[in-house]
Amino acid sequence: MSLPPEFALIAQHFLPLAGPGALALSDDAALLLPPPGRELVIAADAMVAGVHFLPDDPPETVGRKLLRTNLSDLAAMGGVPLGYLLTVSLPRDTGPEWLAGFTAGLAKDQAEFGLALLGGDTTSTPGPVSLSLTILGHVAPGSALRRAGAGPGHDVWVSGTIGDGTLGLAVLLGERPGSPSGHLAGRYRLPRPRLSLGQSLVGLATAAMDVSDGLVQDLGHLCRASGCAAVIQAGLVPLSEDAAALLQADPALLPRILTGGDDYELLFAAPPDAAAEIGARAAGLGVAATRIGRFVAGDPLVTVLDGQGGVVPLGRGGWSHF
Amino acid sequence: MSLPPEFALIAQHFLPLAGPGALALSDDAALLLPPPGRELVIAADAMVAGVHFLPDDPPETVGRKLLRTNLSDLAAMGGVPLGYLLTVSLPRDTGPEWLAGFTAGLAKDQAEFGLALLGGDTTSTPGPVSLSLTILGHVAPGSALRRAGAGPGHDVWVSGTIGDGTLGLAVLLGERPGSPSGHLAGRYRLPRPRLSLGQSLVGLATAAMDVSDGLVQDLGHLCRASGCAAVIQAGLVPLSEDAAALLQADPALLPRILTGGDDYELLFAAPPDAAAEIGARAAGLGVAATRIGRFVAGDPLVTVLDGQGGVVPLGRGGWSHF
Repeated sequence: MSLPPEFALIAQHFLPLAGPGALALSDDAALLLPPPGRELVIAADAMVAGVHFLPDDPPETVGRKLLRTNLSDLAAMGGVPLGYLLTVSLPRDTGPEWLAGFTAGLAKDQAEFGLALLGGDTTSTPGPVSLSLTILGHVAPGSALRRAGAGPGHDVWVSGTIGDGTLGLAVLLGERPGSPSGHLAGRYRLPRPRLSLGQSLVGLATAAMDVSDGLVQDLGHLCRASGCAAVIQAGLVPLSEDAAALLQADPALLPRILTGGDDYELLFAAPPDAAAEIGARAAGLGVAATRIGRFVAGDPLVTVLDGQGGVVPLGRGGWSHF
Repeated sequence: MSLPPEFALIAQHFLPLAGPGALALSDDAALLLPPPGRELVIAADAMVAGVHFLPDDPPETVGRKLLRTNLSDLAAMGGVPLGYLLTVSLPRDTGPEWLAGFTAGLAKDQAEFGLALLGGDTTSTPGPVSLSLTILGHVAPGSALRRAGAGPGHDVWVSGTIGDGTLGLAVLLGERPGSPSGHLAGRYRLPRPRLSLGQSLVGLATAAMDVSDGLVQDLGHLCRASGCAAVIQAGLVPLSEDAAALLQADPALLPRILTGGDDYELLFAAPPDAAAEIGARAAGLGVAATRIGRFVAGDPLVTVLDGQGGVVPLGRGGWSHF
């Protein structure tokens, strides 16, 4: 009795990704003995071709983007990666080379981030490629970073640079000049989950989340969870060289940089007296961490100031699916 | 700052489903302190409209079917439900009444099966409704039921009745007579995960899995994992009254009953001297458990015999997505 095509495909492409608990992907479920005395951190994200990635994005980066957006959620909680489950719905005419590229990308990232596939499902779909990934990680009980906890007087921090993802999308769509193999496009296709930084912020940051739906909207979420407001300085928001060049050429890009999605940087709060320690830890990890403003008392509003103390008008606040 | 539509929708429809570890669905991930000394059982399944359910299936049953197919995987391992994560990709024109029905169905099943939503993601899609669910459960370490372990001389058992799901689909498609609100259609739309039976088989069954892709194909998987063959008697395969009536009217339905998918019953192996105990436990739980054949030495082939000892020809062995 030979394997039907669906199972042959799983054996060829997904089995090499499977970790010990995956039981060779041949049982009904995976088994996982949680690390003793640790709390699990679990998140799930979906990605759809044409919504979260471009249909002609290289399959190598599609799987990695999905894994990395989930790792970014883990990073935001201060978690250590443990494993993941993946469901993949593919058009029936998807060629084997697409799956080969997709899983080769995942294999690279598994090695880089230290986790393995635990299980999942592969189905057909009459629609676009639809992916869903559930990630499992762990933290010391009670130590996870949360969105609630920022207070008036705490600094607003971000890691890395902001706006690269949304500008990378603009480059790939031909709306802005730039190379599809350049920095910005790379940042759209391959987020950089800040796992080490997140872990190092446990006990230092009073609140944290990752920036996925735009800096301003996500800061609004953090303010709402924490019960305070925030004022940030547009001029302090860290930009990559490529983003800064585009902004200089067209200052009207500022709202897009501040509200576009796909940053996958950490946004966090800490009292000013923690600033030196945070700076030292981030520097030790080779990750930029920048203070861009302050939390203040008040309703959960985010105000963005320009260099003259005026309010930057933003239009829509961030990305919403509906 | 009011909530953007995506988050308002999550607050309205999904927040009422959230368990304690879900952190009100307002953090980047859920937190879960695993039950001390237990092993986690984790599985994920995807469902796509037009593939796994009919686009006009009532939304109340769509969410429940997804949850129950995952609970069936847990049942097959002998697991106890703990929680689930859900990703939902919806066409932008999906009405609020669809989501209201979908989540109302999930609420019912959460109460029935004793678990709660931990987290997930809601996105738009230009394609059909695409759902993915990851389920978490637990077992005593090392005690999970596995597919490997059946041996020559062990009995082949199934729970409940076989073929109702695939015949229910035929009824709903108008290919066979029957009511859309009748037994068979109900079995297609609402599987009955055999959680209590699965848990009661720990230590008794030598191998187990759930029947989702057709009895014969899935028995082949179990044989392959266990390194043996199986011979089953078509006449012993338990049928519901409605299925038996359709089969009597058209004996050519037999291959469909034996190879159609969507049964979500347990298929398991046990030595003959465990039969009385298994029968007593199943009866105590009000679940039918029927011996339909025997595992034998040999290559992992499944043979189905008719009442005269002839081999029933089956055509395709079961459902494959590709």
